[in-house]
Amino acid sequence: MNKRHYIRNSSQDLRLFRWFSAKQCALPTPKMTENGLGHREKVLNMNTMNPNVKRVEYAVRGPIVQRAVQIEKELKEGVKKPFSEVIKANIGDAHAMGQKPITFFRQVVALCAYPDLLEDNKFPDDAKNRARRILQSCGGGSLGAYSASTGIEVIRQDVARYIEKRDGGIPSNPDNIYLSTGASDAIVTMLKLLTSGEGKTRSGVMISIPQYPLYSAALAELAAVQISYYLDEDKCWGLDVSELRRAVEAAREHCKPRALCIINPGNPTGQVQSRQCIEDVIRFAAEERLFLMADEVYQDNVYAEGCQFHSFKKVLFEMGPEYSNTVELASFHSTSKCYMGECGFRGGYMEVINMDPQVKLQLTKLVSVRLCPPIPGQVLLDLVVNPPRPDEPSYATFIKERTANLEILAEKAKLTEQIFNTVSGIRCNPVQGAMYTFPRLTLPEKAIAAAKEKGQAPDMFYCMKLLEETGICLVPGSGFGQRDGTHHFRMTILPATEKLKIVLENIRAFHKRFTEEFS
Amino acid sequence: MNKRHYIRNSSQDLRLFRWFSAKQCALPTPKMTENGLGHREKVLNMNTMNPNVKRVEYAVRGPIVQRAVQIEKELKEGVKKPFSEVIKANIGDAHAMGQKPITFFRQVVALCAYPDLLEDNKFPDDAKNRARRILQSCGGGSLGAYSASTGIEVIRQDVARYIEKRDGGIPSNPDNIYLSTGASDAIVTMLKLLTSGEGKTRSGVMISIPQYPLYSAALAELAAVQISYYLDEDKCWGLDVSELRRAVEAAREHCKPRALCIINPGNPTGQVQSRQCIEDVIRFAAEERLFLMADEVYQDNVYAEGCQFHSFKKVLFEMGPEYSNTVELASFHSTSKCYMGECGFRGGYMEVINMDPQVKLQLTKLVSVRLCPPIPGQVLLDLVVNPPRPDEPSYATFIKERTANLEILAEKAKLTEQIFNTVSGIRCNPVQGAMYTFPRLTLPEKAIAAAKEKGQAPDMFYCMKLLEETGICLVPGSGFGQRDGTHHFRMTILPATEKLKIVLENIRAFHKRFTEEFS
Repeated sequence: MNKRHYIRNSSQDLRLFRWFSAKQCALPTPKMTENGLGHREKVLNMNTMNPNVKRVEYAVRGPIVQRAVQIEKELKEGVKKPFSEVIKANIGDAHAMGQKPITFFRQVVALCAYPDLLEDNKFPDDAKNRARRILQSCGGGSLGAYSASTGIEVIRQDVARYIEKRDGGIPSNPDNIYLSTGASDAIVTMLKLLTSGEGKTRSGVMISIPQYPLYSAALAELAAVQISYYLDEDKCWGLDVSELRRAVEAAREHCKPRALCIINPGNPTGQVQSRQCIEDVIRFAAEERLFLMADEVYQDNVYAEGCQFHSFKKVLFEMGPEYSNTVELASFHSTSKCYMGECGFRGGYMEVINMDPQVKLQLTKLVSVRLCPPIPGQVLLDLVVNPPRPDEPSYATFIKERTANLEILAEKAKLTEQIFNTVSGIRCNPVQGAMYTFPRLTLPEKAIAAAKEKGQAPDMFYCMKLLEETGICLVPGSGFGQRDGTHHFRMTILPATEKLKIVLENIRAFHKRFTEEFS
Repeated sequence: MNKRHYIRNSSQDLRLFRWFSAKQCALPTPKMTENGLGHREKVLNMNTMNPNVKRVEYAVRGPIVQRAVQIEKELKEGVKKPFSEVIKANIGDAHAMGQKPITFFRQVVALCAYPDLLEDNKFPDDAKNRARRILQSCGGGSLGAYSASTGIEVIRQDVARYIEKRDGGIPSNPDNIYLSTGASDAIVTMLKLLTSGEGKTRSGVMISIPQYPLYSAALAELAAVQISYYLDEDKCWGLDVSELRRAVEAAREHCKPRALCIINPGNPTGQVQSRQCIEDVIRFAAEERLFLMADEVYQDNVYAEGCQFHSFKKVLFEMGPEYSNTVELASFHSTSKCYMGECGFRGGYMEVINMDPQVKLQLTKLVSVRLCPPIPGQVLLDLVVNPPRPDEPSYATFIKERTANLEILAEKAKLTEQIFNTVSGIRCNPVQGAMYTFPRLTLPEKAIAAAKEKGQAPDMFYCMKLLEETGICLVPGSGFGQRDGTHHFRMTILPATEKLKIVLENIRAFHKRFTEEFS
């Protein structure tokens, strides 16, 4: 393992690495028997493959989820378990947890996919008008044509208007909008652009700990340096500029810090940043000469009293030209979260501000190699940024569906916090926003020793046992990063309310049993 | 420019590079004026950005297409031109050129997007059954849920059955199928896995010249070594093993050759490989210890008398266990080409054969970081591999539509070859398959000098002039690679027959004028 990627938090990373290595070593390297071509190893094997890919980890779909899928198969095959179904609270996948799509969105997608339906009286006029407008901007009037690599032009215009409205009129230029295959695609593309240098001039990228593991995975793949800054669990996972400064100063000895990534509202931590905090971060980025990446895919998911979403773009522009003309910013949004939860369509966009025009040409060239983001995802995104207006027939239903989805999420956020905080040994910050809780676990020494014995992180050991005993699939905190010696898990708040109550009760009971077993 | 990427063909690459460099230098690096934060350059600028990205080139959407888009805008704004529309024959985008979607495919997509339509009498039962089956395998019965990162399981099963049927019963295991975001995604993922080493141990990947520039772009981005082997224009763009051997032997001095990429039917060259040739290639890969990558996205696009598509998988297995148990192969397919042309859905798959099981785990981990391929694209792919059966109500229409699309393509392939070969100074091989012709141009010395003057490749100069004078957008041969001193362009055969005739006549007239002007 190349140590330069691990400026902090190395013991934990090492632990995880050992776990993965142990798994890998469990499979013997196959040696072929003699044949006409002689002895042969595989051309592509663990020794010849890309070493950066080996370093990639992505816990949200890691070993625990693979085990969950196995268990589901076992249940289907009639294997007896102490539970009847696997509940996947590991991933922010609203529809999989029973949330229904927004009717208007799907009507328009269906009309675009099969335009014969434009003759059908069952569809409202606003859906038809929307579909016609989109189809007119598609090559040959078909979703089957490629679009421009940056996305369909009218959709980029709609995105710009959406941003302007969201940010109280601050202008947005469609030429700064790049549509993407979910937000992940655009985030990886930006990180790719930012990666250069060797040794001590290697690009360093600051990411929060805990973080969403897309970031660490992409940095590992690109062999860029991960610079970890810690969120303050005791201050509701708040971000403190002095911690950013500590991290960047330590990192300068090993690499060239170039970018600062922020997730707001937070994943996996669920905090919502205050306006003041965002200002501080922007000032820090300006002083330290860092490219800002603002992951704002949960921008509609704000539940807590007194909390409000502020976009980095808006705050940046309100800080005046000294900042708004200089600080380089890319912000990201997606169709996958918020009230719509359309993960499967892989829609998203990025807005870039103050990007070097020559680099922008390079970015456009780079995205053109993959031709274009999927058109159905672009259509979905268009509907998200341009939903029914008050004077349109679908407006009332749209507002009803959107409000209901967000209210239920707010209710579940509250419920989760309340129930977890009744459990001795689980401590949970308020879920101010996003879709996750990241509670802290107090684990008995004997459990930690038992985990060590197995070569597992203690919270991986805990979550595996929880899965085997209850069918509940969570992601261990070690998959997101956490302060050494602390243990957490990430759970989505997405199961339907009645099911969520059962899940929470089952975790409570499990935690009690677990604590007793290892005490 | 890092020379190690250019084992052959360096003078041409240098020429192209100069062209791009000239463009880049045309934009001044912006220097910010003094402000509260002092002088500042951009954090992310041409000096700090990823140097591998700078090296990427993708001519199919390169400068000529950007100019075509500009001209379209100018036409809209009323600027007078000697033509009334831009005809984009630069990219294999069937729907944009007026080909209609397959009715059944779009009915099923609409039903899946908006399942209320399952109650609608207007849809045939087989479309409804197909939609129900797909929705049952989606999380929460919605296209909006993530799928497994390798794709929806029933679709992977359908793909395996499709491959078995195509290959006369040779078994295919769904566990070897990875769904992807178009074929490009899977190809880049495989190249990523294959890239390792430094200096003389750096991975080398063999690609044909001419090639589809996704390959050179991905290799540049990954800083892998491109090993060029030349197709034989005089033998209808045939592939000769002695040329493969020459290329690999020369490359061993600079890098570690690890993979051999084949595009069959050929892009941009339109040739269809014989069974014998494929056997020779497989034997060569086995002897030289190369991982085989077979890009077979045009597998239904075979037009020429006596030509037939043979999959690498089938030939490999027919060669017996000495090969079928050892040679590592990844083959690629897509929803974007063939008779359906559904590029916008970004559907595709890859089948891996004889892959090291540990590497397969790494591959699965790697694709999980991007969560999943777009679900609408997965649905489209399912319909391609599992179209209406003879006993189903949609069968007759499906067959009629498919046959019509393929017959028209065959007709246009013939027409293109015939007309081009009447032009003095254009020589064109038969378009045996795929969707392109790659004719060779004889250009006057004065034209070559004029191009040099402009820092352009001669065929770029030619194509730019063609675009300005006729509105026809082609891609210069230099964007695909060609033997030094030869000049080509790639043109799709996709415009509607009547329009294609006009395009061909206009190119004929232009070529005559061009030749006269520079003689």
